[in-house]
Amino acid sequence: MATSTIISIGDELLIGQTINTNAGWMGKKLNDIGIEVNHILTVSDNAIEIKKALDYALKDSSLILVTGGLGPTKDDITKKTLTEYFDGELILNETIFELLKKYMESRGRPLLESTKQLAYMPSNADVIFNKKGTAAGMWWEREGGKIIVSMPGVPYEMKAMMEEKVLPEFENRFSNETIIHRTIMTAGLGESIIAEKIKDIENGLPDSIKLAYLPNLGVVKLRLTARGTDEAWLKSEIARIEKTIIEILPKYHYGFEDQSIASAVQELFVDKGLKLACAESCTGGQISAQLVQIPGSSAYFKGSVVAYDYDIKYNLLKVSQNTIEEKGAVSAEVVEAMAKSARELLNADYGIGVSGIAGPGGGTEDKPVGTVWLGFSAKDRLSSKVIRLPLDRVKNIQMTSNYALHLLLRFVNGENFDS
Amino acid sequence: MATSTIISIGDELLIGQTINTNAGWMGKKLNDIGIEVNHILTVSDNAIEIKKALDYALKDSSLILVTGGLGPTKDDITKKTLTEYFDGELILNETIFELLKKYMESRGRPLLESTKQLAYMPSNADVIFNKKGTAAGMWWEREGGKIIVSMPGVPYEMKAMMEEKVLPEFENRFSNETIIHRTIMTAGLGESIIAEKIKDIENGLPDSIKLAYLPNLGVVKLRLTARGTDEAWLKSEIARIEKTIIEILPKYHYGFEDQSIASAVQELFVDKGLKLACAESCTGGQISAQLVQIPGSSAYFKGSVVAYDYDIKYNLLKVSQNTIEEKGAVSAEVVEAMAKSARELLNADYGIGVSGIAGPGGGTEDKPVGTVWLGFSAKDRLSSKVIRLPLDRVKNIQMTSNYALHLLLRFVNGENFDS
Repeated sequence: MATSTIISIGDELLIGQTINTNAGWMGKKLNDIGIEVNHILTVSDNAIEIKKALDYALKDSSLILVTGGLGPTKDDITKKTLTEYFDGELILNETIFELLKKYMESRGRPLLESTKQLAYMPSNADVIFNKKGTAAGMWWEREGGKIIVSMPGVPYEMKAMMEEKVLPEFENRFSNETIIHRTIMTAGLGESIIAEKIKDIENGLPDSIKLAYLPNLGVVKLRLTARGTDEAWLKSEIARIEKTIIEILPKYHYGFEDQSIASAVQELFVDKGLKLACAESCTGGQISAQLVQIPGSSAYFKGSVVAYDYDIKYNLLKVSQNTIEEKGAVSAEVVEAMAKSARELLNADYGIGVSGIAGPGGGTEDKPVGTVWLGFSAKDRLSSKVIRLPLDRVKNIQMTSNYALHLLLRFVNGENFDS
Repeated sequence: MATSTIISIGDELLIGQTINTNAGWMGKKLNDIGIEVNHILTVSDNAIEIKKALDYALKDSSLILVTGGLGPTKDDITKKTLTEYFDGELILNETIFELLKKYMESRGRPLLESTKQLAYMPSNADVIFNKKGTAAGMWWEREGGKIIVSMPGVPYEMKAMMEEKVLPEFENRFSNETIIHRTIMTAGLGESIIAEKIKDIENGLPDSIKLAYLPNLGVVKLRLTARGTDEAWLKSEIARIEKTIIEILPKYHYGFEDQSIASAVQELFVDKGLKLACAESCTGGQISAQLVQIPGSSAYFKGSVVAYDYDIKYNLLKVSQNTIEEKGAVSAEVVEAMAKSARELLNADYGIGVSGIAGPGGGTEDKPVGTVWLGFSAKDRLSSKVIRLPLDRVKNIQMTSNYALHLLLRFVNGENFDS
């Protein structure tokens, strides 16, 4: 099996200003294609330290993945250091230079001398083009089949290079075993409850198939990983196990392969030719923002009223002042009225209404921090449900948004909730 | 100055199942007391790898902080490996054994053989008692004044040992140097343009002060780090340089020390007793969601109309159909009308209006993907500005939101934009 070392370069990682999430993400992706990670070395933007880390890494690993230090500023010395280490020299790459010029032109900015440095690339490395930014990556092939890849530290730039170039190339060259992943997306149940429900399936898994639970703010991914040489058998086993799991979790399973709930909502609404509108209080626009992240959302999503202040609930959403005073702003009655009003005001088929206490302040004995009411409206029915969340403000908002969209799927599919 | 290496042990860190937040936390704490972190090494639960990491660390650093691998299960081999490495042997520690017995008794659990292993400690190390769990830490003093500390990987157990024992002891022994960090937050300029503007300052920095650029979607942090023994001089130098940088970037500097733009907006509005409302199209609620993440936002934020569909712009926001047809939905006229309408409809002092093409679809030759108009309204004035973004849909939305809030700060401070 091919083995790898990840070298993360950047002072900000050593002083704890930035948490090194890149290395974990890369470790997971490499592992998924059967490449073991021997070590992760985090070092400063310092040529001596970078060279020492390379010495260490090249002793054990055949693949070295370096991130960070490729920007245009003075503290970015990775390219120069790697080029020296591998006895190359930096020469102007005309293709990159032209791309940089276009990039700057399109943004109406001058091409500075420091930016031009980004077009100088090592003479003995292949270029990995950067579709998300300006600093290109590098790919060296060295004696003994060693490969050294250098990528930017900006997470989305690194991820794009990994997914489009590095991982497919590695998989192609080094994977002699078949690895099949299948991810079942669920929402609305905690991981221990799911584990309890499917424990017989888990205990009966063959040795070649593993199950992992990946929980994240109301969503739990169940990842099945099969490894072996008999691809047909592995595929049929994965399909059989997947079917059994889904049968046990019919309301909670909503998709596959990292599909977001927002994308499942879009699929359902576009499929049925329906329109959606929201009225958000405590989530402050998060539900809408999540829906709009998916390209094509304009096909079904009408919009939202973020009624953060009380008077927007009265004046714009026409929730009666009596209802708010009698039942409180965080109540079944208010979120159902908000959902109804959103549907009518924004001319949609379905409406969502959300009101709750995200924290840290605002809790009462009756309605502690984390109490959130979710309301749903269709032409001929209303329903609502209360949830109680245990996290901090930002996470409570995100979790509320996930719950709201998951319950919306169930509501549109005909379910009514008994709060 | 004392220098250190952090060694994080655990397979889960290499395969990305757990993100290594411990190392960042420790790096920050060590840095705060003037101890430099040379490197962070993350290795698997494997004796050979742990010993290699120790070899590497002991070459450069006088202080080695090891976390992980101290639990009672089979894969926890750190204690055994370190004891071998430092030529000690494991002997039963009666004090820890008694504590373990009490701990298990108080939980009504039997003392298993695997748990008893936790009471065997190296003959040549001091014990660091664990007040939050069962696995004790170790403290070796070796030739050349080197110190090796081993702690559990459970974050709150490690943090308690660091705060109660390791950091005070280190500070007491080694802190003769001061390290001062100062982070200047900027928005609206790319890192290369900033670098160009302040290159004279950067070239004139004394050796004891370093400057780093940390860019993220329209925001660039400028981090100054000063090291030395003359604390008063370092402080005055940092203050002087900070002042000079801010003078060069008056419009773009908005805060210090990792402050988010949303928090700066909140500060300004609460300070002036003003209210804010938004009308969002392409950002779909992201601007509002970002504002609402800050506790206390209800003090100034009224709400938002997410006008994702055209007809919301006509019907709810009352943008004239003529204007949209003549100028297009992505235009100065439309975002100014949206900003005005948000302010009036939601009864606020200032309004934001945003309309653009986030991608991947919807671009035209005239208005390619990434074209976004941002509008701002006050009682007596309107202004707008166009930006062109180069990223993918999700990043373009996030970047738009950062730009909008930053321009809002400038608008409230009296600036009008010439598009």
